[in-house]
Amino acid sequence: MASRSAVYRGNKSFSVEQKEVSAPGAGEVQIQVAYCGICGTDLHIYLGHMDQRVGFERTIGHEMSGVISAIGEGVSGLSVGQHVVVRPLDHCGVCPACIAGHEHICHNLKFIGIDTEGAFQEFWNVPAHTIHTLPDDLSLAHAALIEPLAVACHDVERGQVAEGEDVLVIGGGPIGMLVALVARNAGGNVVISEINENRLAYAEKLGFATANPLETDVAKLMNERTGNKGADVVFEVSGSQPGVDLMTAAAATRGRIVMVAIHATKPQIDMFQFFWRELELIGARVYRPEDYDAAMQLLAEGIVDCDSFITDIQPLDAIQSAFETLTSNPNAMKSMIRVSGELA
Amino acid sequence: MASRSAVYRGNKSFSVEQKEVSAPGAGEVQIQVAYCGICGTDLHIYLGHMDQRVGFERTIGHEMSGVISAIGEGVSGLSVGQHVVVRPLDHCGVCPACIAGHEHICHNLKFIGIDTEGAFQEFWNVPAHTIHTLPDDLSLAHAALIEPLAVACHDVERGQVAEGEDVLVIGGGPIGMLVALVARNAGGNVVISEINENRLAYAEKLGFATANPLETDVAKLMNERTGNKGADVVFEVSGSQPGVDLMTAAAATRGRIVMVAIHATKPQIDMFQFFWRELELIGARVYRPEDYDAAMQLLAEGIVDCDSFITDIQPLDAIQSAFETLTSNPNAMKSMIRVSGELA
Repeated sequence: MASRSAVYRGNKSFSVEQKEVSAPGAGEVQIQVAYCGICGTDLHIYLGHMDQRVGFERTIGHEMSGVISAIGEGVSGLSVGQHVVVRPLDHCGVCPACIAGHEHICHNLKFIGIDTEGAFQEFWNVPAHTIHTLPDDLSLAHAALIEPLAVACHDVERGQVAEGEDVLVIGGGPIGMLVALVARNAGGNVVISEINENRLAYAEKLGFATANPLETDVAKLMNERTGNKGADVVFEVSGSQPGVDLMTAAAATRGRIVMVAIHATKPQIDMFQFFWRELELIGARVYRPEDYDAAMQLLAEGIVDCDSFITDIQPLDAIQSAFETLTSNPNAMKSMIRVSGELA
Repeated sequence: MASRSAVYRGNKSFSVEQKEVSAPGAGEVQIQVAYCGICGTDLHIYLGHMDQRVGFERTIGHEMSGVISAIGEGVSGLSVGQHVVVRPLDHCGVCPACIAGHEHICHNLKFIGIDTEGAFQEFWNVPAHTIHTLPDDLSLAHAALIEPLAVACHDVERGQVAEGEDVLVIGGGPIGMLVALVARNAGGNVVISEINENRLAYAEKLGFATANPLETDVAKLMNERTGNKGADVVFEVSGSQPGVDLMTAAAATRGRIVMVAIHATKPQIDMFQFFWRELELIGARVYRPEDYDAAMQLLAEGIVDCDSFITDIQPLDAIQSAFETLTSNPNAMKSMIRVSGELA
């Protein structure tokens, strides 16, 4: 049996190719992929920022949903036809982080869809331990939002947002917006700081207070809103120097700042404020199994307006133009690829 | 009655003057000061770094011990002759930090001995709520170490050092050394990173593992000592760019970094590591009442070799030369002033 697979070939290009489907190995499950969203990391790969890690032979993609199509030897508790998502982390089990119970940030972590083959292909074999089964009545397109929503659940769990707390989310892209939704659901009074007017408009449509830091002193705004207290929890999702300047300026005394963004260069940080007001900075990366469970629960509860959050869905054959559009158009929330048309 | 007082007059100078002793006001206690250590902050004041805050009329000093000499109206539970130390913090009680129970980092905190009159004078009036009484058998010279030891207790409490954890202290000055002692007492396996050879020798005399980062890759050393895990808790006490570079490099996955140092400029921080390894950065400033209680307990238990830690004790009349020596000699641990000679 042959199936189609989108292969990253370097130089901002994908080729959609036919390849022979391999049976799942021992301990693996084969999934017919329904949908796969385009992650910010996928855009970095497309732009060539991760060529050394990814190479030019890789099928990427990890924000997926699908249906089990075959079961490998030794796998129990799963069956063909089940709707599933994959938690795309493969840990080593023997490093100090794994031994301490932090498998999701294993020292030798393989991120499936970056370090190994990903979900922009019709039939995909993955380790069985990565599977989360879905209720049959959950839309497979919506289910492809579980992965980024699990990121947001992990971020909010790390920040320990409590009922009535004042929350500032710096950066209103897809992850920032999901963090805002999860933080609001946890009881937070959320303000989103974002410079893109279309994203600001979408945040307002979702009922959030917003501010454009190019026009507003956001730290001053947070103080005004909170009786001069500031934000109990700040999520830094912008990855920018103005973002890290704002995170220390807007946080309350003893405020928690969750570092969600990936800062490729070393920004200057107002360390004095950490001392002076006993701030905390808390790193957050990917997710643990329970974050997937939480994301599925929140999706079922309807906290994400999936139909407006998914900006567009395009067929696998159009993956090249989908990436081209997304890198020239920062207004989209989530662009998604329909990988196997017959599952739609 | 007249008494002597050392007044900071600017331009790296103190004048020791006679002044009339005032009776303690309502809610105040008058203390005859026995000893007062010279803090790093006192050195900053002497060097002119804080002239705008301190002015040129101030008696500074706060690392003190003494004996109650008079009691103001409305003060109960204290009596003349009691040996005491002062927790030199005066909070407002009405700001968001105070309301949240963080009085020690009150938004309007007055640090007694910086923002108001300090302990380099024979008779000193302070608010009664700042007093901690001492057992009579505790040496008053040793008791003047309670304030910096309380800083260290607060730092270690913020870092939640647990039995068997690997601890790195970056900077082996007086506070770093006390942090190392308290962390070791809490069960930590402590390494001290310090560039001053005399301080390294003192740390080794106290039984600590040490490293000079000018000669040794301290992050590599921590990995070697810990099976490639790294430091569970890092205390950044150096206030330097190399120090903050080391703190992220040496920390274990999910490690806690306690920011003890005062960074006057904004250093560049490897924010990527906070994301990648889910590090935490925890600010720590001064102390809470329970840190004073802990410091007194630890001093009584003998975890500080006070006689070697106190490098020298000089009379109040020699305060000028004591500051001059200390700013030219970074080898001393704690230089102390004997404020009232008759209490020695």
